[in-house]
Amino acid sequence: MKDKLSTESYKGVRDFYPEDMFIQDYIFGIMSSTAERFGYQKYDASILEPAELYRAKTGEEIVNEQTYTFTDRGDREVTLRPEMTPTVARMIARKQREIPLPIRWYSIPNLFRYEQPQKGRLREHYQLNVDIFGVPSIEADIEIIQTAHTIMTNFGAEQQDFSVYVNSRKIINTLYDVFDFEEEKRHKISKLIDKKEKIPKVDFEDMITDICGDTSKDFLKTISSTKNIIAKIGENNEQLREIIHIIETLSKLGITNVTFSPLLMRGFDYYTGVVFEVFDNSKENNRSLFGGGRYDDLLSIFGREKIPAFGFGMGDVTIRDFLSTHNLLPTYKPQTDVMICIADDTPFESISKITSDLRASGINVAIDFSRKKIADQIKRAEKKSIPYIICIGKNEIDSNNFTLKELATRKTTLGDVFDLAKVISDKKELTQKLSN
Amino acid sequence: MKDKLSTESYKGVRDFYPEDMFIQDYIFGIMSSTAERFGYQKYDASILEPAELYRAKTGEEIVNEQTYTFTDRGDREVTLRPEMTPTVARMIARKQREIPLPIRWYSIPNLFRYEQPQKGRLREHYQLNVDIFGVPSIEADIEIIQTAHTIMTNFGAEQQDFSVYVNSRKIINTLYDVFDFEEEKRHKISKLIDKKEKIPKVDFEDMITDICGDTSKDFLKTISSTKNIIAKIGENNEQLREIIHIIETLSKLGITNVTFSPLLMRGFDYYTGVVFEVFDNSKENNRSLFGGGRYDDLLSIFGREKIPAFGFGMGDVTIRDFLSTHNLLPTYKPQTDVMICIADDTPFESISKITSDLRASGINVAIDFSRKKIADQIKRAEKKSIPYIICIGKNEIDSNNFTLKELATRKTTLGDVFDLAKVISDKKELTQKLSN
Repeated sequence: MKDKLSTESYKGVRDFYPEDMFIQDYIFGIMSSTAERFGYQKYDASILEPAELYRAKTGEEIVNEQTYTFTDRGDREVTLRPEMTPTVARMIARKQREIPLPIRWYSIPNLFRYEQPQKGRLREHYQLNVDIFGVPSIEADIEIIQTAHTIMTNFGAEQQDFSVYVNSRKIINTLYDVFDFEEEKRHKISKLIDKKEKIPKVDFEDMITDICGDTSKDFLKTISSTKNIIAKIGENNEQLREIIHIIETLSKLGITNVTFSPLLMRGFDYYTGVVFEVFDNSKENNRSLFGGGRYDDLLSIFGREKIPAFGFGMGDVTIRDFLSTHNLLPTYKPQTDVMICIADDTPFESISKITSDLRASGINVAIDFSRKKIADQIKRAEKKSIPYIICIGKNEIDSNNFTLKELATRKTTLGDVFDLAKVISDKKELTQKLSN
Repeated sequence: MKDKLSTESYKGVRDFYPEDMFIQDYIFGIMSSTAERFGYQKYDASILEPAELYRAKTGEEIVNEQTYTFTDRGDREVTLRPEMTPTVARMIARKQREIPLPIRWYSIPNLFRYEQPQKGRLREHYQLNVDIFGVPSIEADIEIIQTAHTIMTNFGAEQQDFSVYVNSRKIINTLYDVFDFEEEKRHKISKLIDKKEKIPKVDFEDMITDICGDTSKDFLKTISSTKNIIAKIGENNEQLREIIHIIETLSKLGITNVTFSPLLMRGFDYYTGVVFEVFDNSKENNRSLFGGGRYDDLLSIFGREKIPAFGFGMGDVTIRDFLSTHNLLPTYKPQTDVMICIADDTPFESISKITSDLRASGINVAIDFSRKKIADQIKRAEKKSIPYIICIGKNEIDSNNFTLKELATRKTTLGDVFDLAKVISDKKELTQKLSN
């Protein structure tokens, strides 16, 4: 006959069992409710996109080596989206004239990259994308950074747990202007600076020397400190004034962990202005968590008029690692409130009225149909972390009096269905209030 | 330079603009809350699965011609899941010994089929999957049909709007036993009966004659009516008694639109017992909506012990068509409660306190940063269907007194931030109550 099949998932992707799903829903819930609090509307699209969408403006590494791209049965080249920004730009470009500006949108798409799975990097992950379109002023930059920051604090993080670094692509470009670097050199240096932390200092300096020749010594000295960079571009540089204004305004809004970081690049080529990055300050997980920036040119790839845009993407895998490192993950609670345990050979019909009444009162009810011993049924409910049980036999049905047992405390309540529903509802409401 | 890119999505998939997303969230919300009411826990998995998962027990047509299957860069064959049941079976098989039975799980995965897009059939759709594992008795069958039925009524459908048809694979098999058909014939006839409504009567009869030879006349006469089938298998047939018991029990639960339909097949090969289908009774959309059934053998493909299972899959595209046909779709409301319109050249810092206070009171607030004329800003808010606006200028900030305007009624309220937040909250609560 057949060989037996493996029960493993595909490499680098995740199965979400109810316990994992609970965490995922919690993370998505905080992301969504915070984005909505700042006036963002939810959108979505398919994971399948025409491959040419990613040939235009994305960082090259991703298109060439890391996408899932294949040819469909109709000979079309299709890519599993590696990021959401080209999709959102496509959607905005399509209805540019119908949707009044400003457009505030968010989504939590799953994204795909073919790479060796490792901690914090999987082949499929989810990423909150928050974008504002149609606001050229830095008020958009401030609002987006504030939104990202509020998501972190809504997760329970303190400001000392993480740092926000800001920079502007224009500051880097001014610096390149000062050194009179041509386009190709700029591109190479930017890529190198983006990877600076991942390569040994000596190698980095060698590679810069290869690219810059004579000026390398001066350039390396300049980029060795923020002070030197500011000295080079001048304190009155317009973009520098902008960055300082952003940091000061955020500070007035109570956001005090923001620092100017003139070498911050952020991978993608389409950024045109301010970029930012959120960094985990913990020793165990000292790494970049997520970031974003301004991309005012992206819609031009569709031949449409440009719309100023600013956005960020926050991945679920890195955020989960952050929450776990800082002990901020919630404890699993199933969606089910109560398990009905059926005693003796009570038929299904006899318990259907009480379950219907409980459900009509807003209670989530599961039934154990096994007819095992009550003690065994209770054990099964406990193993599922279901908070309450009601055991029903002939006596209960005849008297219309039931016993609700809270499994954690073994506390019991006697009453009719509506009395018991109220006990469960009140407890749920109380728990919800305490967790807010 | 570059050619301009198309703004079209990939063929046969959908972009969800906020208005579409609102409907999608409504549909998913009713599906989830109803499944949870019956004690089901949410799970999920990746759309990427090893291709061999679909070679085992799925209907052949789907594996060979209709899947998105490709080879990844590591030479693994990968399929974009065309259905969720093999995935859930894989996940259960993997932790069979850890999770106590009964297992009640639901998910709303997106599924992929390569086919010509047409009304009600796209290349990507979402499908609620509700499954119960570990209950061999027909109590599971009844509970699942009740859950499916409750979702329909929670959408606002009346019982006369749709029909539920039930059958058992075992009844068909008994009929085949009576006719002494061998395995291969059974398979061919079942496929043919499954397509009966889609082919002309004459063709159907010719094809049956081809397969059955001498007995075809008797067989065709038998399957021409439920009465004839019952006569053939005998009124005391055990499976027939079971079906009648299911229909009677559902009727006691208030579910009265269920009919025995002995030729109901439901596509997939893995069904082993009772199957059911929900059908739209409307003239405009007179078609099968969704269905499910018992599949007690599926876990054996993983070399594990069998677990009795019953489940159904409800697609979002067909349900949306049903809701639209029966006028049951809700009207779009954005998640944003209020748009702040900034008068004159009031700086961002000045309005940040009122927006923070509104947000802290649970109000979803967007800001128009355009500095356009107030009348234009109001028009833009109206076009976005945002229910309220607050215009803020120097006077408002100095007096700490703001005017809230409800755009639909032009009704205004004067007060401080917390007064206004209360007006918005109360209205939201009222609307929510009315819609329950």
